[in-house]
Amino acid sequence: MPGIVEESPIEIAIVGGGIIGLCLAAGLIKQDVKVKVYEQAKGFREIGAGMAFTANAIRCMGLMNPDIASALRSGGSVATSLDKDDPNDYLRWTDGYNKRRKDDPTYQPLLYKIDAGYKGFEGTRRDQFLEALVKVIPQDIVELKKRLDTIEEKGPDGRVQLKFTDGTTAVADAVIGCDGIKSRVREIMFGSDNPASYPHYTHKVAYRALVPMEKAIQALGEYKARNQHNHVGPNAHLIHYPVANQTMVNATAFLSDPNEWPDDKVTVMPALRKDLEESFADWNPRLMALIQHFPEKLDKWAVYDTWDFPAPFFNKGVVCLAGDAAHASSPHHGAGACCGIEDALCLVTLLRQVKASLRGGEGSAATKKEALTSAFEVYNGVRRTRSQWLVNSSRRVCDLYHQPEWGHEQKWIKAETCFEEIKDRSLKIWHFDYDGMIKQTVEEYAKKVSSSKAGAANGKANGNGNGTAKVNFYK
Amino acid sequence: MPGIVEESPIEIAIVGGGIIGLCLAAGLIKQDVKVKVYEQAKGFREIGAGMAFTANAIRCMGLMNPDIASALRSGGSVATSLDKDDPNDYLRWTDGYNKRRKDDPTYQPLLYKIDAGYKGFEGTRRDQFLEALVKVIPQDIVELKKRLDTIEEKGPDGRVQLKFTDGTTAVADAVIGCDGIKSRVREIMFGSDNPASYPHYTHKVAYRALVPMEKAIQALGEYKARNQHNHVGPNAHLIHYPVANQTMVNATAFLSDPNEWPDDKVTVMPALRKDLEESFADWNPRLMALIQHFPEKLDKWAVYDTWDFPAPFFNKGVVCLAGDAAHASSPHHGAGACCGIEDALCLVTLLRQVKASLRGGEGSAATKKEALTSAFEVYNGVRRTRSQWLVNSSRRVCDLYHQPEWGHEQKWIKAETCFEEIKDRSLKIWHFDYDGMIKQTVEEYAKKVSSSKAGAANGKANGNGNGTAKVNFYK
Repeated sequence: MPGIVEESPIEIAIVGGGIIGLCLAAGLIKQDVKVKVYEQAKGFREIGAGMAFTANAIRCMGLMNPDIASALRSGGSVATSLDKDDPNDYLRWTDGYNKRRKDDPTYQPLLYKIDAGYKGFEGTRRDQFLEALVKVIPQDIVELKKRLDTIEEKGPDGRVQLKFTDGTTAVADAVIGCDGIKSRVREIMFGSDNPASYPHYTHKVAYRALVPMEKAIQALGEYKARNQHNHVGPNAHLIHYPVANQTMVNATAFLSDPNEWPDDKVTVMPALRKDLEESFADWNPRLMALIQHFPEKLDKWAVYDTWDFPAPFFNKGVVCLAGDAAHASSPHHGAGACCGIEDALCLVTLLRQVKASLRGGEGSAATKKEALTSAFEVYNGVRRTRSQWLVNSSRRVCDLYHQPEWGHEQKWIKAETCFEEIKDRSLKIWHFDYDGMIKQTVEEYAKKVSSSKAGAANGKANGNGNGTAKVNFYK
Repeated sequence: MPGIVEESPIEIAIVGGGIIGLCLAAGLIKQDVKVKVYEQAKGFREIGAGMAFTANAIRCMGLMNPDIASALRSGGSVATSLDKDDPNDYLRWTDGYNKRRKDDPTYQPLLYKIDAGYKGFEGTRRDQFLEALVKVIPQDIVELKKRLDTIEEKGPDGRVQLKFTDGTTAVADAVIGCDGIKSRVREIMFGSDNPASYPHYTHKVAYRALVPMEKAIQALGEYKARNQHNHVGPNAHLIHYPVANQTMVNATAFLSDPNEWPDDKVTVMPALRKDLEESFADWNPRLMALIQHFPEKLDKWAVYDTWDFPAPFFNKGVVCLAGDAAHASSPHHGAGACCGIEDALCLVTLLRQVKASLRGGEGSAATKKEALTSAFEVYNGVRRTRSQWLVNSSRRVCDLYHQPEWGHEQKWIKAETCFEEIKDRSLKIWHFDYDGMIKQTVEEYAKKVSSSKAGAANGKANGNGNGTAKVNFYK
């Protein structure tokens, strides 16, 4: 029988032990793929910031490995934006700038509301989710304090070799860079003189604070304080939602900044509440009242993304990028991590197909390297358009929130016409057709494998398709 | 029996005998609604410009009155963008600016292609369509040389009175302004000191020409000349498609213009081919070659729309606006008239429901005036968001075509990420859910009528719902 390939397990190196790296590892384990995660930190980063996942992304987690969704929930996730007596989540936009009623300068109209459905979002603390995720995967697959230095594609036995800055090395069949916005894998892939290797400044800065619920209620009124709201106005917006079981409000103010950021290496700078007060001095008094409860000293975050110089591709041979390493988005859709989860689902799908095609039978002449290369080509084709769209769209909605027109009464009507677009963009994220993605991924991998087999066989008829595995196999 | 209302016919005055006004008239006639069309010109305007309708808009025409779609086709409509051996229509974008290959400076990559489906567009000449449309409606319903001066809402018998500049008057139960981008009805509705009464300059100018096919083939090559293409580049684009049974190419160049347009009253100015040649001097030589076949003297059109100052509403009592009078869009989606057709379908639906609710039975206490006012309120609610979105979206896609990034090699990848958004926007236009619109229109009118009846009856139980007529009655 021709074409029988030795069945040694596929070994995948994941660079980066963040949310996407660990979810991907948990998904691959479920497919009996051998995985190692290399994380540069001493432990899993303990950043206490809140993050939310859409119901759609949580379903993607469940398809990869039901334990991921359990980990999210065991971390104490909560729906972020629940109206009283309404099981659905909403996003809400209000006029943050104007005093529309002379008799009540604190009046703010609800400009728009989008229904995200039942448990449309689930919020969690990043550190809590990570901690729970670590428990999902066997302890010995994670190696800490491993900062990637280089990747050598032609390592021992033609496999790929990772070199770390501590002088150690590791070998794998393929490398997936999940090492975030400042990805070293991306830098290696595109070269240090290529602007696509680095994120760039979005010309927006962010100030974050946690405000005790009773103070937030004093400032905003009970309904606004207890429910997510996005206050829009000229060149800035302020978004807040309840956290910690409605005991705190997590508030973030984003300001447009026409200047360059002074240092790409230092994207957080100390700042003063006073600066923020100056920026919002002309805004609706409710916002100024809320800002009074921010700490006097706070951080100013420069928002970076890959909009200016997107990655031209996410794959090179048996190396690929996923999550923020591939497409770092500004946070204005709150969907950056969700998009990384979709990436991971696509990769888990592909590696399952790679295994199936290698298990082989007649005609499966592809080597592991060829199969993995094909898989990552398919991944690039399936994921790049949507994920780069998200980067663009996150910029775009922020521009709409910051329309200068909010500041001119004659232009309010024009400014308010933006919400149909914001709704469409939100629904494109929330209603992602992951079943369609899985189907497309399986089909395109089968096509690629059968065409390279046809090529390898030099015109021989292509018998049964190993790649045409059943679609929707997760169900 | 209480609440029986005298059944006198509803009389509608349509201001403007353009495409939308005549399609609306043809739709209302089919519902046995009495209609008069008042057109200011001596005859139907003989502007020979080409226009295209989407397959979706043509289905909307058919739902209003199958004779409309027949009129379109009898005018000799043709699919505009047919690939050889492919029954579907496509939109195609190519790099109009760069010389991407040193060995072949005329090389232009196909950047993107969207499948609009079988007969996705049908193009026609405006004058031919109008001429055929006129034959669909009885001759005596059109009055020419009637330039609207004022509308008096409290005319004889509480009906609405139109006064024309020739001193004559007319009376109707309701007025629908289909009088185009420079609508007098809009000006009357919002007042002459309101910027929403007038369209504003989009900061784009257009130059149009018809080029004989053989010349176009010399310039562009056979495939491009015979198929629709949109050549994009920094601050300009040039779009062309075959017309006149593939004997001519209709080409339009759009340029960004940072300046103000000198005179809102005169939006066409004489210009020279030389001006256009200067603007495209740095572009791909194929475009310069095409422009050589433009006439030496040509017109420069200022593109106006209602983006800066949208109509805050489309209805006021028994007066409403439809088509460009309500929402004048720049032409960059090629969908302005399609959106007006959707308006007309909504209005035909409503007037049918008004008739049904007045035919009445128990509880139908609404007067004609109340019923028509309610209908126009529903119309405003159903149509305003989508149509104003189209105005915004037409601006947005032009901005994407004109991205300065096309001019910088390092930014090409970024510029090319725009097409996912352009696809989404195009599909939102082409895949309009008109059945959903009809259903929504019928339901919201029923709700409005029953709630005003409940109000009128001061709490009396609302018996059978006259408004809850069958949905999809056109089928």
